[in-house]
Amino acid sequence: MGFYLRSLQRLPSLQATMYSNAANVVMTGALGRMLYGEPIGPRWLLARLGHLSYRLIIAYDGTDYCGWQLQPSAPTVQRALEAALCTVLRTERGVLGVRAAGRTDSGVHARGQVVQFSCNKDLDVSKMPYKLNSVLPHDIRVLRIHRTAPDFSVTCSALGKCYHYSVTNSEVHDPLRNRYAMHVRKPLDLAAMREAAAAMVGTHDFTQFSNIGEEGGRPRKRNPVKTLRRVDVVKLEELAPGALRIEVEGNGFLYKMVRHISGVLMAVGEGRLPPATVTRMLEVGSNAPPGCNGRYRGYNVAPAKGLCLHEVFYDPRVDDPSTILYPDLLHDEYGRLLESIPASDDDE
Amino acid sequence: MGFYLRSLQRLPSLQATMYSNAANVVMTGALGRMLYGEPIGPRWLLARLGHLSYRLIIAYDGTDYCGWQLQPSAPTVQRALEAALCTVLRTERGVLGVRAAGRTDSGVHARGQVVQFSCNKDLDVSKMPYKLNSVLPHDIRVLRIHRTAPDFSVTCSALGKCYHYSVTNSEVHDPLRNRYAMHVRKPLDLAAMREAAAAMVGTHDFTQFSNIGEEGGRPRKRNPVKTLRRVDVVKLEELAPGALRIEVEGNGFLYKMVRHISGVLMAVGEGRLPPATVTRMLEVGSNAPPGCNGRYRGYNVAPAKGLCLHEVFYDPRVDDPSTILYPDLLHDEYGRLLESIPASDDDE
Repeated sequence: MGFYLRSLQRLPSLQATMYSNAANVVMTGALGRMLYGEPIGPRWLLARLGHLSYRLIIAYDGTDYCGWQLQPSAPTVQRALEAALCTVLRTERGVLGVRAAGRTDSGVHARGQVVQFSCNKDLDVSKMPYKLNSVLPHDIRVLRIHRTAPDFSVTCSALGKCYHYSVTNSEVHDPLRNRYAMHVRKPLDLAAMREAAAAMVGTHDFTQFSNIGEEGGRPRKRNPVKTLRRVDVVKLEELAPGALRIEVEGNGFLYKMVRHISGVLMAVGEGRLPPATVTRMLEVGSNAPPGCNGRYRGYNVAPAKGLCLHEVFYDPRVDDPSTILYPDLLHDEYGRLLESIPASDDDE
Repeated sequence: MGFYLRSLQRLPSLQATMYSNAANVVMTGALGRMLYGEPIGPRWLLARLGHLSYRLIIAYDGTDYCGWQLQPSAPTVQRALEAALCTVLRTERGVLGVRAAGRTDSGVHARGQVVQFSCNKDLDVSKMPYKLNSVLPHDIRVLRIHRTAPDFSVTCSALGKCYHYSVTNSEVHDPLRNRYAMHVRKPLDLAAMREAAAAMVGTHDFTQFSNIGEEGGRPRKRNPVKTLRRVDVVKLEELAPGALRIEVEGNGFLYKMVRHISGVLMAVGEGRLPPATVTRMLEVGSNAPPGCNGRYRGYNVAPAKGLCLHEVFYDPRVDDPSTILYPDLLHDEYGRLLESIPASDDDE
């Protein structure tokens, strides 16, 4: 009842109604379970209460982490972030349901990774970045936090992503960019790279630019047709001698797709592949070319350290907690989605 | 005699004369020493022969080093570089006489540090960077190597230096720039910073912008009057959000001068100091203002991690081994300086 009254006092009318209804349902549910002799464990209660959805924007230096995804015995970004959230929110890991927009690989960096979690507390989003950053390691930083629509999904609601791939094209690698950029000694032909990059823009089957169905990789049933909006090769000479950046923006990415794209572009820049190969690779798509194990060769997949998840794009409505993003689908009493929306491919 | 003949065969006439004379003097000297019963140790011979002067341009990430200068029990850049040179040249540390243009402090980086050493071998300067980089740790890289005039001095021949100080001016520090940039949360007023920077350009007594004569610091007799040619505040928004760089170029620098300058400029940018304070500090110079321990306060010396020795300027003649840079001073038979030239202040 305390929760019910507090909700009514503090919140604007519309939200108050939602909250009071929620509290009502919880209290009634609890009463019902008590009457029928069912146990009311803390997990049941938290699952009922954990209905406020939050969106974090984080940046990290991935050098010392084995990627985003939680692993039993390796340091990962998810593990470090969950530990910080548990400390600050005084809660348990399982309750938060932390998920990220892009499950970055080992050694991949991020400047605009988006992470979602659920929580039963009405957090002061302006203070949360400071609280979290004070307990996070120095190579992970929370930039912003927003409350979101209750049916927000960090992966399915994403409209697209932008990745940056950094290269140092000079005789000797710049030690101040060694952690964040790949080194290419041979002078790169930017005109040829830009020609090849232009061929990639648009909607194509990118099977040849990914690890899908490679030997050892598990075959996937996902759609390999993606739309790239932009593939730019940018010179950043004023930042460091020989600094280059490949910027790739698209609606979705296959596993290691940006690293394949960067590898192909560097092979083109070095003169090892003609730009026309890119067009052929896009035409072949998932129909394996004869021989060569179903793959075009002649390039190396670019190393992880040059890759950075720069930005994930969302509809601005996601940051409005009173919005329902998917009105045609079934929601529970908190606005959470009960049906699943078609999965997008967020494999990079 | 073998050396004498090889010199005559291999080298162009002018150099050959110089070399044959040198060999002559060495052989005569050795004969003399033998006749008078003086020992001819390897050190004496190497000191005689080590008359080819080389100039290395190196870059390093100073994060994991206790600065440039050799220390008994700490990792320093000089130690790592000397170890690499000894491995590649198969010689002893003491023979090389390694010296740097700027003795960078602990944690300070470099993109254009210049290092001098002597060697009795005629090295293939085009292959040396690869040989050295193959044994150097990843955070130190040799960019180029040149043979220099025999009387070249890495410190005294320098015409000036350029330092870069990197800042991230945003709510939260960018973890991908954490090793190389200072973080300033409060928005910086670039116009005020540029006004203060403009006041520093020119010839002034920079005592107030250094650690000279501070309590604990040993008092120095050096000239505190320096000429700054350029103090620029550059915005690098396309590199990273909130990225700024303070570029300082001058004929010489006092100890920690660039970090003092950067600290003052950031205090000005944050509104903690009015730009006019800079003018007053330059006017006061080495005359201590009343109170406050002879120092202006109101700013913090900027941390080492943001500082990078960007470039050291030399007369182009230094890379010509047949030039004598200081014809008015006394030289030995190898062209090496016997008198010392007035020391410049390379204290940063």
